[in-house]
Amino acid sequence: MVKGPVVPTRGVLRPLGVDEVRLTPGFWGDRQELNASVILGHCREWMTRTGWIGNFRVAAEGRPPSELNGREFADSEVYKLLEGLAWESARAGKDIGGLEEITGLVAAAQEPDGYLNTRFGPHGPGHRYRDLEWGHELYCYGHLIQAAVARARTHGEDELTGVARRAADHVYREFGPDGRAGVCGHPEIEMALVELSRLTGDDRYLEQARLFVERRGKPALADIEFGRTYFQDDVPVRQARVMRGHAVRALYLASGAVDVAVETGDDELLQAVIAQWERTVAARTYITGGMGSRYSDESFGEDHELPPEHAYSETCAAVASVMLAWRLLLATGEPRYADLAERTLFNVVAASPATDGRAFFYVNTLQQRVLGPPRVEGQWPWGRPPVGRRAPWLAVSCCPANLGRTLASLSAYVATADDDGVQLHQLTSCAIETALSAGRVGLRVETGYPWSGAVTVRVVEAPGGPWRISLRVPAWAGGASVSYGETRQAADPGLVTIERDWRPGEELRLDLPMRPRWSHPDPRIDAVRGCVAVERGPLVYCAESPDARLDSLGVDPATPPAETTAADLGSAVTLTVNARETRPKETPWPYGTEPSPPAGEPEPLTLIPYHLWGNRGPATMRVWLPDIS
Amino acid sequence: MVKGPVVPTRGVLRPLGVDEVRLTPGFWGDRQELNASVILGHCREWMTRTGWIGNFRVAAEGRPPSELNGREFADSEVYKLLEGLAWESARAGKDIGGLEEITGLVAAAQEPDGYLNTRFGPHGPGHRYRDLEWGHELYCYGHLIQAAVARARTHGEDELTGVARRAADHVYREFGPDGRAGVCGHPEIEMALVELSRLTGDDRYLEQARLFVERRGKPALADIEFGRTYFQDDVPVRQARVMRGHAVRALYLASGAVDVAVETGDDELLQAVIAQWERTVAARTYITGGMGSRYSDESFGEDHELPPEHAYSETCAAVASVMLAWRLLLATGEPRYADLAERTLFNVVAASPATDGRAFFYVNTLQQRVLGPPRVEGQWPWGRPPVGRRAPWLAVSCCPANLGRTLASLSAYVATADDDGVQLHQLTSCAIETALSAGRVGLRVETGYPWSGAVTVRVVEAPGGPWRISLRVPAWAGGASVSYGETRQAADPGLVTIERDWRPGEELRLDLPMRPRWSHPDPRIDAVRGCVAVERGPLVYCAESPDARLDSLGVDPATPPAETTAADLGSAVTLTVNARETRPKETPWPYGTEPSPPAGEPEPLTLIPYHLWGNRGPATMRVWLPDIS
Repeated sequence: MVKGPVVPTRGVLRPLGVDEVRLTPGFWGDRQELNASVILGHCREWMTRTGWIGNFRVAAEGRPPSELNGREFADSEVYKLLEGLAWESARAGKDIGGLEEITGLVAAAQEPDGYLNTRFGPHGPGHRYRDLEWGHELYCYGHLIQAAVARARTHGEDELTGVARRAADHVYREFGPDGRAGVCGHPEIEMALVELSRLTGDDRYLEQARLFVERRGKPALADIEFGRTYFQDDVPVRQARVMRGHAVRALYLASGAVDVAVETGDDELLQAVIAQWERTVAARTYITGGMGSRYSDESFGEDHELPPEHAYSETCAAVASVMLAWRLLLATGEPRYADLAERTLFNVVAASPATDGRAFFYVNTLQQRVLGPPRVEGQWPWGRPPVGRRAPWLAVSCCPANLGRTLASLSAYVATADDDGVQLHQLTSCAIETALSAGRVGLRVETGYPWSGAVTVRVVEAPGGPWRISLRVPAWAGGASVSYGETRQAADPGLVTIERDWRPGEELRLDLPMRPRWSHPDPRIDAVRGCVAVERGPLVYCAESPDARLDSLGVDPATPPAETTAADLGSAVTLTVNARETRPKETPWPYGTEPSPPAGEPEPLTLIPYHLWGNRGPATMRVWLPDIS
Repeated sequence: MVKGPVVPTRGVLRPLGVDEVRLTPGFWGDRQELNASVILGHCREWMTRTGWIGNFRVAAEGRPPSELNGREFADSEVYKLLEGLAWESARAGKDIGGLEEITGLVAAAQEPDGYLNTRFGPHGPGHRYRDLEWGHELYCYGHLIQAAVARARTHGEDELTGVARRAADHVYREFGPDGRAGVCGHPEIEMALVELSRLTGDDRYLEQARLFVERRGKPALADIEFGRTYFQDDVPVRQARVMRGHAVRALYLASGAVDVAVETGDDELLQAVIAQWERTVAARTYITGGMGSRYSDESFGEDHELPPEHAYSETCAAVASVMLAWRLLLATGEPRYADLAERTLFNVVAASPATDGRAFFYVNTLQQRVLGPPRVEGQWPWGRPPVGRRAPWLAVSCCPANLGRTLASLSAYVATADDDGVQLHQLTSCAIETALSAGRVGLRVETGYPWSGAVTVRVVEAPGGPWRISLRVPAWAGGASVSYGETRQAADPGLVTIERDWRPGEELRLDLPMRPRWSHPDPRIDAVRGCVAVERGPLVYCAESPDARLDSLGVDPATPPAETTAADLGSAVTLTVNARETRPKETPWPYGTEPSPPAGEPEPLTLIPYHLWGNRGPATMRVWLPDIS
């Protein structure tokens, strides 16, 4: 059994589990360690303090609803934490504190018929599923089931698996072929049910997921102020042309639809999601990989509506986008999905947590004009309006635990195998051990990526005879090369595969060109017209207020950015570009018959990796820089 | 008694009432006629159909709250309608149907102690004022009182005045010097109470308004998800530096603060509001005069955060901005306030209603990329997300009745007098009759403005001896001239004043240069970098989809726009500019190392006045055009 979050029964590539790929020290390995040592505990502490974990006790003991805490989806946060603890227990090789205790609380709150929700459950059956649009009950089951699957795959079935099965059976009775034709306002349960079906072999769960996917958009839910687009109930999944509405919901639904399509062999459905993904990437995705441009309803905007200012780009949408990309990669084998996942991981997922792991961005704006008011001790920041700093916790706190479970299972998103070889999709230091049809293979990947462009893959175990090692050359990496033995050859973007009789001790080395580059936006992205951004390798860069006053700077892309380092940013590569001040006159009215003022003298401007902004104190920031050339 | 909505007891200029200034056919006179013949009746019909008027009957009869309709502020819509009917009755010289009947319903719902609110009233005293943050009870009183003042000034005190006095007395008991130190989450009552004090001479109402203004920001309300900035409870009014938070609330509060400052002689408070207004105009105002750039909380953004796309620019914020500008104009006599009012009236207030008066924009975006889904009969459009068309009604329907009362009283915002003469602030066809210290004067203003730049003021009555006629030369109108008799002289922007022994039959003529002009934004307004807009006279222009495909057009401001007319836009002056297509390649990823594609061949592009967009069917639109010069 593959010990990973996504284990399709068919597809081009076979995922490698968390026991087959282990991250070693490096960009992602270090973050996984931080997750283990800080983030998961931080989440547990806050969920205890806020009473979200305690809600299960309130429900189990039948205490009044006035004793419940948090929002209607608070249960799901606890489940995400459980999932993170399950993955981390597998990684650590021992159960992480809290896992068993919280599982016990959850189990105690489940009702005899399988229903489980602290918010609606204690009020009796008449309160169940009364508000599918906003109640999040099925959404919460989704996270429960994903946690249970993680636990079962890494530890074996236990109490949590039982709880999840009973809940899923209950859902099948209530919403199955003979039940009510409803769906959840927040998709999530679809992919969870497919995974439970994969785990247990019980086809009812797959059928239930299929029903949830197919009912959507016919429509299945009531209209709401944001319109049914908000929860993707405007158009059936297989007829939709693009991702739209609430970004996390859209991406979770698409992930579930891919799972259903793969398991049922429904190529039409798979192709529909692929087409939606293509247009979404081409017209509705930030340069960081972030998705969702609108604040008002956490939604995708229209094509090319990608304002950097007040950009939403929710952390959970980035997690969801990586989940979707991974599913599409497994189904098709195409490296473009890993390309987007890489961009999103480095520039949104890595940007959300502070370097100390104790504060998080909920939204990942691309421009921060001003600092918000100072943090008040004891007050939870709501955290959504960007204020130039991360928040230790949020009233709507979906993101920290979503990060926690993602980082804990991150090694499962790195590499795959097929009969003939291993494919490394994310270029990160790790150890890979798995079995091919020819026998067991072992690899050690070592790299300073993304700071360095050299990735070395050393063979430590090999079956004898020819087999293949494949490495993804990112789409931005024109001019890359691979070398092994005495051979050195150009490697175009895509998957470069070297088949030979790889022997222990041999190395395959990938060299990526890490020259910083200016990036220009499609001119239809009106909000960044006349601007340029800087990228280096997979990283997007930004200017931040500790280094410059940002409201009237322009840059000249004629000169290439120069590499530097900053004492206060550790091993990060920083950059310097030529900037010029273009401070306009202060006038009583900001529109006039004269074009912009001329620019001042050139001065150097430091750029830092976007994912590190806001770690040197509250800051203003911008990714897109006015082009004054 | 001046028959107008704002009648300060002191100030530089004396407002002229609706009996002293009557609009005659022309841009605004025609709209006032449309308001009389269509808009007010449309509002009454919808408020009847939706049950908002019926709510007063439900409350009076003590029927259960389940029979109430609409949102918690629905009462205020009925009051705004009453105010509009009061002004229109004065204009028409006879009571407009509905006024007396609705007044009777309102009066019947008032409780013996003066409390009046259909939403909270029927549930008894324990439900009153429980949620000052969101309950809107004091806000509703504000509109009630403004309606009653309008009625009393134009007709004499009647049942409605009694209702308003009882409500205001109740407020004074509950929130006065000896009462609870609360304020309303939505400012509005402040300016209403000052006006009631001006009407009745009762200083308690002024004192109550002063208390509401002074309590704010200390803070007086609970924190909310949007933060206390949302309802201007973050900083005391006299310490604030700029308008912020919910735009309508901010502008209503500022209006009330000016009223309080003027009546109490509090120059510090007045200067504080003026300073806030200055920065708001310089950095937080759209080229249309629209205010409020954020969708999520209908709020001002930060300085220079003025995205055209998804711009909020609520119609009610425009109405409120005109109200504030008028108060500042009366207090100071400075023409810059009338300049902003003109811009806002022509480009937001006039843009909201359809030319047939039966549909309205709630938000006045400056860029519409796509058309929304088609309207479904019987479904109320929520109307806030811009979909390229106006809505006949909205669930939150603050704007139509706000327009109705504003248009019905518009002649009261046109001209003022002082001892020595008359000042014409808005250049519109009208008849003015008033008394100066020297005796009665009469003027007829005739103009094709804003299509023509000629404004003729004919004297029809004069007292003999010297007196002054002043005309506002708009800030954009460099090169204007005035002429009278054989004299012709240059007239700089500002108030041009000609003092002479004006005799009946004599004319003063103002000639404004109406050459269309390219306008460039302050470079700190990032969202429109590299773009230009076109203005002509007081009008902002836009490109609309019936005339062009807008997603890849650029313009060359080297060539001046040429004047044209469009058969389907009546008397409107349309413009033609040189445009070029810059259609980018379709690529899988919208960011790349190559700058924009070169532009195609020049082609003519029609621009229409912004306020007319969306009247030729659903449309896409943009005000800011990429500059490809």
